[in-house]
Amino acid sequence: MQSRHLIDLSDLSVNEWEDITRLACDIGANIDSYYGACRGKILATLFYEPSTRTQMSFQTAMLRLGGRIIGFDNPSNSSVAKGESLKDTIRVVSGYSDIIAMRHPAAGSAMAASLYSRVPIINAGDGGHLHPTQTLTDLVTLRKEKGTFSGLCIGLCGDLKNGRTVHSLIKATAGFPDNRFILISTPSLGVPLYIKDYLSAMGAPWLEVDSLADAMPLLDVLYMTRIQKERFASENEYINQRGVYILDSYKMSLAKKDLIVLHPLPRVDEITVEVDDDKRAKYFEQTEYGLYARMALIMRMLEGTSKQLPIVPRGTETECSNPECITHRESYVPHTFRKSGDILVCNYCEERTRFD
Amino acid sequence: MQSRHLIDLSDLSVNEWEDITRLACDIGANIDSYYGACRGKILATLFYEPSTRTQMSFQTAMLRLGGRIIGFDNPSNSSVAKGESLKDTIRVVSGYSDIIAMRHPAAGSAMAASLYSRVPIINAGDGGHLHPTQTLTDLVTLRKEKGTFSGLCIGLCGDLKNGRTVHSLIKATAGFPDNRFILISTPSLGVPLYIKDYLSAMGAPWLEVDSLADAMPLLDVLYMTRIQKERFASENEYINQRGVYILDSYKMSLAKKDLIVLHPLPRVDEITVEVDDDKRAKYFEQTEYGLYARMALIMRMLEGTSKQLPIVPRGTETECSNPECITHRESYVPHTFRKSGDILVCNYCEERTRFD
Amino acid sequence: MQSRHLIDLSDLSVNEWEDITRLACDIGANIDSYYGACRGKILATLFYEPSTRTQMSFQTAMLRLGGRIIGFDNPSNSSVAKGESLKDTIRVVSGYSDIIAMRHPAAGSAMAASLYSRVPIINAGDGGHLHPTQTLTDLVTLRKEKGTFSGLCIGLCGDLKNGRTVHSLIKATAGFPDNRFILISTPSLGVPLYIKDYLSAMGAPWLEVDSLADAMPLLDVLYMTRIQKERFASENEYINQRGVYILDSYKMSLAKKDLIVLHPLPRVDEITVEVDDDKRAKYFEQTEYGLYARMALIMRMLEGTSKQLPIVPRGTETECSNPECITHRESYVPHTFRKSGDILVCNYCEERTRFD
Repeated sequence: MQSRHLIDLSDLSVNEWEDITRLACDIGANIDSYYGACRGKILATLFYEPSTRTQMSFQTAMLRLGGRIIGFDNPSNSSVAKGESLKDTIRVVSGYSDIIAMRHPAAGSAMAASLYSRVPIINAGDGGHLHPTQTLTDLVTLRKEKGTFSGLCIGLCGDLKNGRTVHSLIKATAGFPDNRFILISTPSLGVPLYIKDYLSAMGAPWLEVDSLADAMPLLDVLYMTRIQKERFASENEYINQRGVYILDSYKMSLAKKDLIVLHPLPRVDEITVEVDDDKRAKYFEQTEYGLYARMALIMRMLEGTSKQLPIVPRGTETECSNPECITHRESYVPHTFRKSGDILVCNYCEERTRFD
Repeated sequence: MQSRHLIDLSDLSVNEWEDITRLACDIGANIDSYYGACRGKILATLFYEPSTRTQMSFQTAMLRLGGRIIGFDNPSNSSVAKGESLKDTIRVVSGYSDIIAMRHPAAGSAMAASLYSRVPIINAGDGGHLHPTQTLTDLVTLRKEKGTFSGLCIGLCGDLKNGRTVHSLIKATAGFPDNRFILISTPSLGVPLYIKDYLSAMGAPWLEVDSLADAMPLLDVLYMTRIQKERFASENEYINQRGVYILDSYKMSLAKKDLIVLHPLPRVDEITVEVDDDKRAKYFEQTEYGLYARMALIMRMLEGTSKQLPIVPRGTETECSNPECITHRESYVPHTFRKSGDILVCNYCEERTRFD
Repeated sequence: MQSRHLIDLSDLSVNEWEDITRLACDIGANIDSYYGACRGKILATLFYEPSTRTQMSFQTAMLRLGGRIIGFDNPSNSSVAKGESLKDTIRVVSGYSDIIAMRHPAAGSAMAASLYSRVPIINAGDGGHLHPTQTLTDLVTLRKEKGTFSGLCIGLCGDLKNGRTVHSLIKATAGFPDNRFILISTPSLGVPLYIKDYLSAMGAPWLEVDSLADAMPLLDVLYMTRIQKERFASENEYINQRGVYILDSYKMSLAKKDLIVLHPLPRVDEITVEVDDDKRAKYFEQTEYGLYARMALIMRMLEGTSKQLPIVPRGTETECSNPECITHRESYVPHTFRKSGDILVCNYCEERTRFD
């Protein structure tokens, strides 16, 4: 059996990720009884760009299962800086380890790595593209704190245009019955059109608003993200609006008693420190659920693997139009696309290009 | 039960640290039988400034107990460089780990961290302020090599003004019967007045001298530290005096046969290499005792902990007058002081400020 | 018993390294059954210059044996940058650990370290001098893939002048019956004279050629290495000749069906990516054999060790003439030589100097 990888959450069926979130909840309740579940197994954390938080979460997950860890977090200090290809690194490290968690600045890099790996690859972030274990974390948090994925009024606040975790959470939850979405942002930082189309196609009601305070009383779940100063349309807009998207005690006073507040962390100042003491603030708990989610994921991905090499598909001459795509950095990676009408969708970075 | 922390050695009663040094000696004699004592437990080493030696000692301690380690040693390469607060980092990491050893450049940082931690915090150095596990190491060395904390003539040599380990060792041993202290330094680098006051209050005889050679014949214990060139009053004084504070074979020839020589390491040139071969040189053994000390400490601190969050005290508007205090770096940390006459003593950095 | 070290492959008898390669092959076939062979043991990886690949291989080896790892890979970020001597670091770390793998830029540094270590030292590269575990890796690869060390036509291609792994492999295999060597390089990058003398002395036929294509049909083993652009005699020679030493599908088509291609990795462009899919390409398997080789080595070196300090020999006033020798960096290291006629051979870096 070839290794299975987690490049995008869509690599798992809904049944599978429901199984994983259920397992994660059980791990959270009985963590000591899972020590030893991965005895003798090695996780490699290959972080081509630093992310202390995410790396520490993966490492802790493996250690709590009784496994071991190798890896790097400082590529400027490693062989890869000597110009080694992603392929060679993956071929070698997949000979050393049993599973790989990888973060890389190029879109589609995790997918490319999976072509050359003898062990399962977990995408721990590939540029601004995908970060499926964060979404898995969010889902475990919903299950733990709400007990359901349905019937929820979910507010998403901040930079909804660029926030990949926001898009991914919407896609994961829009299909469940009776969920409603309130999208709280400036006009220039709203969710992309294809997300709105997706919501409408799933029959999930959604509303765009520009005031967090207005939305507060309606919400069962508030998912906060940061708006970076440089994302505002102008310095003026920044000065006028920044307070609108900061969650503070006053805005919390407008909300339901059973609201839960999530945040992928790290935060800067988009949630004031005083909110931390509110029982509805769940963002620190969320990081623990992330640990359980990664434990469950590692356990499931290690089941039934054999260290076989995948068969690499043939590519075409066509170039992906996204300059950040991994195919432009690693020239041997075969260019493959899927067709969608007269559009070619890149299999690595999901960029959609029209070809005539 | 809330977690107990080791911020300063005074957090332990004399009974407790005698128990820990006794346990450390037993570990040293039977190290293999302690493997597994912390099975399944995770130590996080959060080093906001690098200290390879201290970090390696903590990591080895946990590994020799059968536990596991996570952490960072390069904050410029981590989320904390993205501006995450100490509080958030500690909240999250105390969800991942069972105990934290932390080194940070700001005075009082370990105390501040303990306000937000669900697990025990060990202070592995907070700026120039405290470094209690070094002192615990020194005490284990005395117990192992001298078999007693009493009746000793203890010489301390080098920069006694700025050397925190010197102050801490004096405070730990002055209370035992019949100890005498010989303080060997230049006039400008002598121990602070409050240390002399402390010695006198404890009834411990002390003497200040400026020649290491003169002191040698009297000593049971010699604690060497480095005088950095820039600490001398002038270039001239440096040239004239540096040799006076260097321990060499000649000075060793003046000493008792059962003298022991300690040094917190790393050394530069304040002990010549030839002294290493003298059986009275115990500074390399001392680093091993430091390993046993940390093993004993970790074992004791993990006993009976539950991962409860502490209750954060209310602070005042008053500002600590020490610009290096953690309260000036992390604005949410409550300002708390204890009164001592008309003096306020900062609970984090121990700075004493007179307020009217 | 004093610790044994692996500074050079010649520290092992042929019997010993045949035993180690045999054990490595068994480990490769039954890796799970070796988990626990080093339970409770600690390997320190002291990398004074970064080499992610080699460090990861050592770490994985120890973890797969059930042991633990400490160490550093970034000396600029560690106490050693504060000017600590190699001796002090080794004295302290050999108190923490059970075995040390060390990489250091100075020739002879591993030998120097072994004078002060209470535990076995494995040389993981000392400047351009020695790298015995790479050679052990190559030997395990021959055993696994060829089943013999004899009767082979071995081609070595690339920079044969500066490639230490090439010299070491020749020395290890020239003594076996019926081996022949084809040395493929530019005239200016041929093997040093002493290697040719060695081959002749062992009675092993050898041939120097300047075309990889010409040599291909003759080879049982092809050991590829990189020629760095700056090694060519001139820009012109580089442009004219570089393609000659690149292994591609065409050249592979000239070779025997049971050729095996090795490379110490990382490669840059001296083997084209298409060759990876040829079943005769064994350089990725080779990195796995390197893991088994290191596991076998660690197991054997930990047998029967006690943590005794070695006796340091007396040195002479004579200076080694190699400016890269460790004796010029660490002044306390005793200068020792062995005589060879009127030549003195430095015990650390093997530099040969004529003294009158």
